[in-house]
Amino acid sequence: MNGADRLCDALLVNGVDVCFANPGTSEMHFVAALDRKPQMRCVLGLFEGVVTGAADGYARMADKPAATLLHLGPGLANGLANLHNARRARTPMINVVGDHASYHLALDAPLTSDIESLARPMSHWVGRAAGPDDVAPVCGAAYAAAMSHPGVSTLILPADAAWSAAHDTPLAPTQVPQPAPIADTALAAAVAALKSGRKAALLLAGKALRVDALAAAGRIAAATGVTLFSQVSGRSERGAGRVYARPVPYPIDMAIATLADLEVVVLVGGRVPVGFFAYPGKPGVLLPEGCEVVELATHANDLSAALEALAEALGAKAPPVTSGWTARDLPAPTGALTPDAISIAVARALPEGAILCDEALTSGGRYPMLAPIMAPHDHLPITGGAIGIGIPLSAGAAVAAPGRKVVNLQADGSGMYTVQGLWTQARENLDVVTIVFSNRAYAILQGEMRNVGVNTFGRNASRMLTLSDPDLDWVSLARGMGVEAARATTIEGFADLFDAALRRTGPFLIEAVL
Amino acid sequence: MNGADRLCDALLVNGVDVCFANPGTSEMHFVAALDRKPQMRCVLGLFEGVVTGAADGYARMADKPAATLLHLGPGLANGLANLHNARRARTPMINVVGDHASYHLALDAPLTSDIESLARPMSHWVGRAAGPDDVAPVCGAAYAAAMSHPGVSTLILPADAAWSAAHDTPLAPTQVPQPAPIADTALAAAVAALKSGRKAALLLAGKALRVDALAAAGRIAAATGVTLFSQVSGRSERGAGRVYARPVPYPIDMAIATLADLEVVVLVGGRVPVGFFAYPGKPGVLLPEGCEVVELATHANDLSAALEALAEALGAKAPPVTSGWTARDLPAPTGALTPDAISIAVARALPEGAILCDEALTSGGRYPMLAPIMAPHDHLPITGGAIGIGIPLSAGAAVAAPGRKVVNLQADGSGMYTVQGLWTQARENLDVVTIVFSNRAYAILQGEMRNVGVNTFGRNASRMLTLSDPDLDWVSLARGMGVEAARATTIEGFADLFDAALRRTGPFLIEAVL
Repeated sequence: MNGADRLCDALLVNGVDVCFANPGTSEMHFVAALDRKPQMRCVLGLFEGVVTGAADGYARMADKPAATLLHLGPGLANGLANLHNARRARTPMINVVGDHASYHLALDAPLTSDIESLARPMSHWVGRAAGPDDVAPVCGAAYAAAMSHPGVSTLILPADAAWSAAHDTPLAPTQVPQPAPIADTALAAAVAALKSGRKAALLLAGKALRVDALAAAGRIAAATGVTLFSQVSGRSERGAGRVYARPVPYPIDMAIATLADLEVVVLVGGRVPVGFFAYPGKPGVLLPEGCEVVELATHANDLSAALEALAEALGAKAPPVTSGWTARDLPAPTGALTPDAISIAVARALPEGAILCDEALTSGGRYPMLAPIMAPHDHLPITGGAIGIGIPLSAGAAVAAPGRKVVNLQADGSGMYTVQGLWTQARENLDVVTIVFSNRAYAILQGEMRNVGVNTFGRNASRMLTLSDPDLDWVSLARGMGVEAARATTIEGFADLFDAALRRTGPFLIEAVL
Repeated sequence: MNGADRLCDALLVNGVDVCFANPGTSEMHFVAALDRKPQMRCVLGLFEGVVTGAADGYARMADKPAATLLHLGPGLANGLANLHNARRARTPMINVVGDHASYHLALDAPLTSDIESLARPMSHWVGRAAGPDDVAPVCGAAYAAAMSHPGVSTLILPADAAWSAAHDTPLAPTQVPQPAPIADTALAAAVAALKSGRKAALLLAGKALRVDALAAAGRIAAATGVTLFSQVSGRSERGAGRVYARPVPYPIDMAIATLADLEVVVLVGGRVPVGFFAYPGKPGVLLPEGCEVVELATHANDLSAALEALAEALGAKAPPVTSGWTARDLPAPTGALTPDAISIAVARALPEGAILCDEALTSGGRYPMLAPIMAPHDHLPITGGAIGIGIPLSAGAAVAAPGRKVVNLQADGSGMYTVQGLWTQARENLDVVTIVFSNRAYAILQGEMRNVGVNTFGRNASRMLTLSDPDLDWVSLARGMGVEAARATTIEGFADLFDAALRRTGPFLIEAVL
């Protein structure tokens, strides 16, 4: 029994039984300990961005953390971009980052780096095991932080804490504090806002976008006429029969216009909406001047209970308005293979209970309009703007939810960031259909260049904003990692491939050449 | 004229005319400014680890920094692992990291993060432009730091510093301090050590491994009998007719045995050798107890001048011992396709002036023994142990040294980390032959598992330490990114492919199935 064994036990006693991993030498004792625990499922990623993105997708669906296993500072660094997304999604996660033996650090061996400095910007909690008997309590603290913030915990495991003998004392599940109830003053302020007769909106985020919370929000909307908006969140339950909260648009001008007539907003789990980026001469806060902001509840509250309390205080008993499942009755798209056409084809065919991972960016087509009339599904988007999440996110979601179809809407430039995740999909035979929108450009940046007034690109700009010359061949890339794949150049061909992919089990990739 | 234009001018006036880039929205004004400067060569990488690894390879060959262009904290994070290697190689580099407009930071928009905290562990210098007129002086400071440490400078460029109007004052090249001369006391101590009759070694690192410095070291060895060792460094000039300093081995037991009889070592540009990792019961410092350490010069000195001074003080005028170019006369290897056989085939065929990038790890074969009898070449290894350097490093070296053949010895597991770099090789038509050692395992870790006493792997360990199930198909991966490729399964087939690859120009990949 050593510190590494204690770490396995402390994870397992808290129900953490999946470990996405890319280990190195300093973690060999932890690997050996994991090898003694067949009840822990270890999933290898061939790059750490795959590991952390998969852990994010897993926890968004499982509502409990996976562990990750990362090798020293550089291994953590490779995983940071998707930890950034997980932090913004407030995904529970426990990163285990190996470090040199404590006495070896002063020698500044080649792989030494300041792991804490790297970890803090993308973690809600950072800790380090002081020795083998400290491993289990530190793991418990990491678990409690991951569940109660909720968010990303990073636990640094020195090699000597892992390999040294530890006491085999009994371990109990870590007690996690219950979410705080909302304050009476917050509830009263929200009631007053919604009864004021002013133009009002509920801004829903995080777990306020799950079915029960949405139902309460829908009753509130039916009773008061308040508009429901959603902010980008880790997981949104959407589709026919569910209340839909309209996403605040990404483009700055559209976002400002959408929110322009609001006089009061009630925040439920989110924050005052701000521009994704600053633009010269445009505001950073998206709400109109003078709009009152009332915070009903934060991510640390039980958002479903908060909305139920608000509904009850308002006497909102009427059933919410939802749509029926009519996307399947839309006419089949014809003509050019465009994002709009693809979004309609996907909306028609998506099976009930599907998980839709969304890193489509400029290729999302009409999805925001189609979502409420599609089959009931979960929507898992990129949350922090750090591209390269779709492929690993879909892998992790599939690990968490066997039996549910995962469809990943994948922009090509972003997909290349963590393309290695296709191999994990193949090895674990994960039921993921990846749709690559092959527009061969950083299309979002070409739009942003026009936003800054540059409409004609010279050699340097065009070389930096296009992915052509040579074109990427996604079918070859997928096959190189053991994932079957095919290319679509017409919408009819795409629809046929998508139907076939939905009927089979296991990973499949469709390159949609736009 | 805005801050972004000033940055371009400040780079160009210092001779920094290559920018490896993966831009984002917050850097659009810098992209627009680069577009106005056709004399700046912008090279796109489809992932930031490619960008920073390529900038490392470029500067190792050019002896001057390239710029990188990285998007906010997550973009920097993706490049950190190869910045770690560059930091250990003391490669001059200027990272330009975009950030939100200064007034937008307080809003904590989704892509906001603590860039300084992320940058410091892998940078020698970190700075932030305070406004548009601060951009040029900050860039000058970044350049001076990159050249004089030498090492990695990271310059944070807020969007409003880039887009705001700047004064068009004349810019002069930044004055870089000359390397400090070595102290007389250091020289005297080194002379005394080498005249003491004790068993002595010169430990050479950094620019002490260039031809002129090696020649001086070789004269010292011829005169005094001192042994020449090399430490892992960014660039070593090796091959027939050059003085060879034997690398300190990586495996801990072999390293300790190799250095066991030393009584005094003289450091020239490096540090006391330490174990790459700590192992229970084994020392961290590789020198025997009681071995005296004399520091003749550090990376901040002119190492060639330091060795010349030492040679002169010792009256070492006899020509150094070098070997002839006999690897081409070795018998062609036959039989199984093994790392040993491949290293012999490469040694026979490598053309004069080639650049050998080396991320072979466990597949290096007999290269350390063959190096002194191969054609004169430059050796560019992984320096900091952060895997995923070979493909981008070779791309950057090829950008810096057109007309020279680049051969990249690439372990498969490491190659997957930054596989996207193959696309950059294709787009820029870089003259790189990549040899992938396809052993379908993290072979180095399988050895380390045995080192910790685990000889039989269960499901979890074998799933984390092998790359099979499914096997990676490197030929498909390369073709998917526009790089021609072929597979070798016999040593004869490998030799034929390698010869053909050397005769053509442009990127080619050989998957050597071990």
